[in-house]
Amino acid sequence: MSSAWLLPEHIADVLPSQARRIEELRRALLDMARGYGFELVIPPLLEHLESLLSGTGRELNLKTFKLVDQLSGRTLGLRADTTPQVARIDAHLLNRNGVTRLAYCGPVLHTRPERLHATREPLQFGAEIYGHAGLEAELEVIELALDGLRAAGIEAPVLDLGDARVLRGLLDGVALPADRLIDLTAALAHKDGEALSAVTAGLPPAARQGFATLMRLYGGADVLAAARSQLPAHRLITAALDDLAWLASHVQRTHPQVRVGFDLADMSGYAYYSGVRFALYGAGASDSLVRGGRYDEVGAVFGRNRPAAGFSLDLKALVELAAPQGPRAAIRAPWGEDRALREAVRGLRAQGETVVCVLPGHEHEAQEFDCDRELTLVDGRWALRAL
Amino acid sequence: MSSAWLLPEHIADVLPSQARRIEELRRALLDMARGYGFELVIPPLLEHLESLLSGTGRELNLKTFKLVDQLSGRTLGLRADTTPQVARIDAHLLNRNGVTRLAYCGPVLHTRPERLHATREPLQFGAEIYGHAGLEAELEVIELALDGLRAAGIEAPVLDLGDARVLRGLLDGVALPADRLIDLTAALAHKDGEALSAVTAGLPPAARQGFATLMRLYGGADVLAAARSQLPAHRLITAALDDLAWLASHVQRTHPQVRVGFDLADMSGYAYYSGVRFALYGAGASDSLVRGGRYDEVGAVFGRNRPAAGFSLDLKALVELAAPQGPRAAIRAPWGEDRALREAVRGLRAQGETVVCVLPGHEHEAQEFDCDRELTLVDGRWALRAL
Repeated sequence: MSSAWLLPEHIADVLPSQARRIEELRRALLDMARGYGFELVIPPLLEHLESLLSGTGRELNLKTFKLVDQLSGRTLGLRADTTPQVARIDAHLLNRNGVTRLAYCGPVLHTRPERLHATREPLQFGAEIYGHAGLEAELEVIELALDGLRAAGIEAPVLDLGDARVLRGLLDGVALPADRLIDLTAALAHKDGEALSAVTAGLPPAARQGFATLMRLYGGADVLAAARSQLPAHRLITAALDDLAWLASHVQRTHPQVRVGFDLADMSGYAYYSGVRFALYGAGASDSLVRGGRYDEVGAVFGRNRPAAGFSLDLKALVELAAPQGPRAAIRAPWGEDRALREAVRGLRAQGETVVCVLPGHEHEAQEFDCDRELTLVDGRWALRAL
Repeated sequence: MSSAWLLPEHIADVLPSQARRIEELRRALLDMARGYGFELVIPPLLEHLESLLSGTGRELNLKTFKLVDQLSGRTLGLRADTTPQVARIDAHLLNRNGVTRLAYCGPVLHTRPERLHATREPLQFGAEIYGHAGLEAELEVIELALDGLRAAGIEAPVLDLGDARVLRGLLDGVALPADRLIDLTAALAHKDGEALSAVTAGLPPAARQGFATLMRLYGGADVLAAARSQLPAHRLITAALDDLAWLASHVQRTHPQVRVGFDLADMSGYAYYSGVRFALYGAGASDSLVRGGRYDEVGAVFGRNRPAAGFSLDLKALVELAAPQGPRAAIRAPWGEDRALREAVRGLRAQGETVVCVLPGHEHEAQEFDCDRELTLVDGRWALRAL
């Protein structure tokens, strides 16, 4: 067998039954976003690398495929994330002063899979609010994300909350080189006490103690109280804890079915986040379905430092948790050029029916569609008959 | 000004008004294809180069961006065309014996633009029928393509017909190296008599005469009669002319508003076509909106040489010809946590309305949406009021 049709690792075709489900969910999410007043944008797959990666950190750089533009000789990147592109559109192209809500849905590509069974070509859907610094923006995007999960049949997800300002507060006044900061973030996210000791070795004892405390601050509602009593009373930390308490209580009030948890130490994968960050999990799942939060600084490189909050999700991952669908009912029709037959076929299709014309010579083949009716000539007229 | 946000040449963001129109047309085309019994597939953007380019010719190779897979060290290509991928899915993954109808819609990327103002990132929609060798397949895909153009408001397009077998018939027994064949195809497509003389210099006089005749065979219905009398009576040529006559008459009968023309010499951009090829133009336009035809051999490299006919189009190009839309009406609502207000907002959104909650502090900003109604408290109940 030739290997010509073997796809690269973590790259797959999406076959009809799954593709249909993805398309339906895609429409449901875009219509929901539209219902909230989010406007659709379609940023390109390819951009100059410096524009694509501005202010986004090493993780996104490593994930981004690079290639050379034959027209200019410059290096291009294939987007691995859409958020920086949407920030560019808000900052440069739309350039509005008021609140702007933007949504997008399209593929992104990753040089390496994010997890063991992850695709390297997620279909990213996302929604973002620009121009509002208050927590109402986070609340609105969380609510939209919850609506999206409900459309996929996930009624009682787990909301995991954190905030970039907690770690920033602890780092205030602590001299840590950039590469060690990356190791510190990884150790905190993985709750790896040994790695944390190693990377904080040489720091003042109070700072080391702060990071060790932070690493244990995950769990239920009591985490916020523990954080208030155990972490230093830095203004960034206090603001973060106040905001998390506000958000958690507001989400619980309107969505009592959502279980809210906290992980103040986990900032992995949130390199450009500046405030609240959140993730949504299906019940019992260990991989997040949705990631989002506040990233006020992501547009700064494009000349406008607007407040921004939003989220993104992978439709391919989401649809795997959604309920499977049966084959859609269809109508079988003979092939022919009879005007009345053609009009009957067109009329049924215009009503939203699938009408499969059986091409000459294929009358005895099995149909992929579940044809439960047939268009047939009865007393000189084309009529539907149950099969 | 920083150049960080300047996009590469022939690459552009799609902003809200255009994006919305593309999304609507995308849905209309996918629903139409579904109505005919075409099943949706989503092939990946990235594949191993040899799989992506198998049997497709030099033109597609030059159009394809290449990059290296960090996981395997192998060369990957970004798809510049989706048809070879769909043939692979039909041949290898679905492996059915009967008629299979497949549709797709997704971006493709080109190293160089096809035309002066063309995008390098078309949004390709296409539909293909596998397993039927008869002309009913071409007729069905042409009809679907015409329905698609009508959805974009193009009611009276021009259908341009040709057939790969005419040139093949003339080449039968003529020794021409592969690179000169490419030059010959280009000279014929561009009606460049001088280039044609140069590339056919040294061939037998009868062959030279045949190509010179072919170059002039374009125009209206009389082209077929001229071809029959002036071209050699090779079996491939005769079969091609018979098929074109059948197709033209059948399309004219059911779609009298379509103007049918012929260009028997133009095979540029149809490297993998094996029989009938067609293009659709908007009235008065010089760039084709739709290209399609028969390509029975495109799946051979994947181990199954199934009959195949189909077409593709670029949604971004199509939408530029479609009628512009006004802003969609929306409802303005105050931000608030009142349970009755939240229920009213949810109910309106569930009915398909866009309800923009004005975030605190932004009450006096202009709205992007054309808010013609407002949700307001009247006698203790939330009600709509015209603005």
